[in-house]
This record gives sequence, structure tokens and C-alpha cells, in this order.
Amino acid sequence: MRADPRLAGADLKLEARRIAAKVDSLFSSYLALPGDGRDRLFEAMRHAGIGGGKRLRPLLTVATGRLFGLAEDRAVRAGAAIEAIHVYSLIHDDLPCMDDDDLRRGKATVHCAFDEATAVLAGDCFHDLAFEILADPATHEDPFVRSELVLAMARASGPSGMAGGQMLDLVAEGRSLDFGAITRLQQLKTGALIEFSVEAACIMGRLPPEARTPYRGYARDLGLAFQIADDLMDHSGDESRAGKRLHKDADAGKATFVSLLGEERARQQCHVLVEQAIQHLHDHGAEADLLRGLAYYVEERDR
Amino acid sequence: MRADPRLAGADLKLEARRIAAKVDSLFSSYLALPGDGRDRLFEAMRHAGIGGGKRLRPLLTVATGRLFGLAEDRAVRAGAAIEAIHVYSLIHDDLPCMDDDDLRRGKATVHCAFDEATAVLAGDCFHDLAFEILADPATHEDPFVRSELVLAMARASGPSGMAGGQMLDLVAEGRSLDFGAITRLQQLKTGALIEFSVEAACIMGRLPPEARTPYRGYARDLGLAFQIADDLMDHSGDESRAGKRLHKDADAGKATFVSLLGEERARQQCHVLVEQAIQHLHDHGAEADLLRGLAYYVEERDR
Repeated sequence: MRADPRLAGADLKLEARRIAAKVDSLFSSYLALPGDGRDRLFEAMRHAGIGGGKRLRPLLTVATGRLFGLAEDRAVRAGAAIEAIHVYSLIHDDLPCMDDDDLRRGKATVHCAFDEATAVLAGDCFHDLAFEILADPATHEDPFVRSELVLAMARASGPSGMAGGQMLDLVAEGRSLDFGAITRLQQLKTGALIEFSVEAACIMGRLPPEARTPYRGYARDLGLAFQIADDLMDHSGDESRAGKRLHKDADAGKATFVSLLGEERARQQCHVLVEQAIQHLHDHGAEADLLRGLAYYVEERDR
Repeated sequence: MRADPRLAGADLKLEARRIAAKVDSLFSSYLALPGDGRDRLFEAMRHAGIGGGKRLRPLLTVATGRLFGLAEDRAVRAGAAIEAIHVYSLIHDDLPCMDDDDLRRGKATVHCAFDEATAVLAGDCFHDLAFEILADPATHEDPFVRSELVLAMARASGPSGMAGGQMLDLVAEGRSLDFGAITRLQQLKTGALIEFSVEAACIMGRLPPEARTPYRGYARDLGLAFQIADDLMDHSGDESRAGKRLHKDADAGKATFVSLLGEERARQQCHVLVEQAIQHLHDHGAEADLLRGLAYYVEERDR
């Protein structure tokens, strides 16, 4: 085991770029322009899905897969399916009737670069693409594993997961939430998909459910740390580095971890969660370094 | 074989009501209010998905399943998953940025009865629910079959299927399409999901692909007949019976089968397609009567 996984920062960036390129290439293979009236839809999907984003979710799936000797190309496929769900949710969340954002990953949002109807459809199509990738025999040779992945992803994405969290967020506007309510909201809105990114590798590695506890613990702590870091970035980050509009929560009067805890305590809480996440990996040696490095990366992303 | 399957009209209505009740009950079991801020989302889903619609797609899956002795409850589950895709697409297509409709299945559309953001999310959640139902072991005990169903549904629903057809429809506004272009558009927009309703039963009945030709032929002809009947209803139907706004295509200057062929020839074409669809079933006896009855029902739905 490395004495300090923070040293792996340069390696992590290299790995992140390598995996991001594989995700881009996979999306690209599904999104060749058909040469008819649907070209605009495919262009909108390419605009939203290719060449942007940190690809944290695919990285998590790949990094977790390393613990179990999972073939990287399979982990990349499952991770890309999860990223497709993430991309669909960003396109829909940015719509005028939702968060009404004009900037995402340093580019115009889909409804701004194209139009609202195309954005709704492009989101819907990334939603389908996620399941198409996951159910493909190339993702895993065992249909039971593929079927488990699909079931778990549908649950993580739907009303008991990400979309349910987005609904909680919508109805929370203008209301004052306490720490417990925000934690619950974020565990659904961003946590469910981050947890599934780790769970997917456990499913593909054929880990029995009772053996998944430490990885679920890692994912839960990491997901919450990620959200606190996101709130910190929204509070005091740099828009051009973030590639999206910031200070939106404060402007909308939304409670966040920062508005509830203050900047200093939020930062401490994020740090504690990252340390806790890494603690769950104590049985592992160097094969868990990428997961450790990712946890430190999450803490430092707003700096 | 019955001398005239039209005689089965009363039976068909009874069967349609019975299957619709099963679909309602299945959706209802997934949509119990959670008793938190997500209640509004679940209420919107119940509004859109329960107690409305002809449930043509589940009926097609059940009717096709009868040819192969498929257990009805399994066919109902797969058919309900397809209906969930249909419901999601109706919610999104009715949005102000798409077709901007206020009436659907005799009720206010979701964005009118609730709001746009809730409608986007309710559609997204039906999209997930479709895959959750399909990948559940209760739908089929063989994970290979479930995985095949998921893959085929993702393709029928996405940019190479339904959503791609909706995009063709969006870019067609104000342009003059010819018969071939409209046929292609409709084969994607409504045909792909109707064809998958039949294909799903073939997959569950473990029919080898080369044995599916007659059922694919039936579904293709039926899907086109269905769309011509829909255009006829839009042209000269009764809004209160249709439960949705009519004459929208003419108002929007969109080419339809009726505007291209005229009412009389469109009606003839629909009849020919229905007869053709039924011809594909010539090797079957009474076990195909429900499929035959459905074809006649499609022809007569605008009367």
C-alpha cells in the first residue's frame, strides 16, 4: 500500500483521461450520424455526451473493478452506461422548467445550443442508450449479471433514486430543510448513482451481497463528500473552472450543506467523510489505490 | 378458426378491459405514495399511467403470447413495460416545447394537471419503470430472455426507434413529406414499439429469429394501419371519444396519410393493411383470434 495515496495525483489524472477517452469512444460508436432528419438529435447527443465531464462514475466502476480483477473494458462499458444516465439527467435538469441553466461542462446546455424539444429527446435517448449498453452481451457474458445490472440501474435512476431526489429538490425550493433532510435528498439525487457505480463492479465481479458492505460504505461516504464539495464549489468556486453556473443555490434560497454548516465546518465534514470512505478499504493493498486517490480528488475538486 | 373474427368484438372488449385492469394493478403496485416530498411525482405518474388508454401494446403482447402458450401474467408484465415506455413518451410529447397538448386520454395532460418539471420527471420515471419491470425475474425466469427483452426495448424506444421518429416528426413541421418519408417516420415513431409488443412475446416464447417473420409482418402491417386510422381520427374524429385534441396535424400544416392520399384512399389503404396483417396468421387457428380481432379493432377505431 502507498504511504500516501495523494502522491498518486498525477497518476489519477492520467487514468481519468484514459478512461474518459474510452467512454467518449464508446459513445461515439453509438452516435454516428444516420444522415437523415435525425442528425440534429444525434448532434445534440454528441454535444452533451462527448468530450466533457470528469467521468467520475465510470472511473469509480473501473477502480472498484480492479479490486476483483474485472476486465477493464467491461467496467468501462458499465461505467459508460451509468455516465449515460448522468448525461441524460444533466440535459433534463438544465431545461428551463427545471434549473434553467445555460452552461454545462464549459459549453452551452443542449436546449440553448439546439432547442428544448431536441434537449428533451436527447436526454430520453441517453436514457435508452444506458440500458442498451448494459444489456449488450459485450458488457458481460453472463445474462444473469446483465439482468441484475439493468434492474439495479433502473432502481438507482428512477423515483426511488436519482429522479426521486430531483423531485425532493424541486419541492424544497423556498423551504428550509434541516441536515437530515438535505442528506436524504442528496443521497437520492447524486448518491444513488454514485453508489451504483461501485455496486455495478461488485455485481460484475460476482461478489455476494453480504461481501459488498465495505464498498457500499465507501460509496455512501464518497457520495456525500462529493455533494458537500459540490456545495462548497457552488459557494466559493470559480465558474470558468467549474464549467457551469455557480452560486445558484444561494440565489434560489436553497439550503445546502454550506448554508447549514458554514464553510469551515462543511470543509471539515467533507474531509471526515473522505477519510471514512478510505477506511472502508483497509483490507485492500495497492489494488485499491485508485479508489483512495478518487476519494482525495473529490475532496480537492473545489480548490 | 372462426369464420369471421369480427364476431369476436364483444369478446375483444372484455379481454381488453381484463388486461387493462391487470396493467393498472401492476403499475399501482409500483406507485404507492412514499409519504414524503416525492408524493407529487408519484401522483403525477398515477395520473398519467393508471385508468386510461386502450392498452393496445399489452394486448398485442398477450395476444401474441397465446400463439406459443406463454403464461399470461408474464405477457402482461412485458406488455406493461412497453406501455410504460408509451406512457413516458406521451407525457414528454405533450410538453409545451413538443406538441403542447392539454388533453390526453380524456384527462388534463401531466404538465397541465401538475407542472412542466414534474411532467419531465414523471416521464423519466416511467422510462425507468419500463426497464425495472422487464429485468425483474417475475417477468421471465431465464435471465437471457430478460436481457434480450431489455436490449430490444432500448433499441425500439431510442434514436433508432420511437424517439428517432419523434425527431423526424419535429423537423418535418412545415416541410412537405412524400408517402415514403411519412411511412418511414411512422414506422419509427409508432411502429417500432408496436412491433416490439409482438416481438417481446416471440422472445419470451423462445421463438428462433427465423421463425418470427410472419409475426413481424403482422406487426408491421398493423402498425401502419394503426397510424392511418390515427390520421383518419385526427382528420374527422370526435374529440370527446378520442380523449385528445384532434385536427392538430392540419393546423400545424403537417403532411399525414390522409392529406397525402385523401380520406377515401387512406381508408382503403388501412383496410388492405389490416387484411394483410391477418393473412400473416394463416397458419394459425383459433389461438390467433385475439390478434385477428385486434387488427379489425384498429381499422374500426376511428368510426
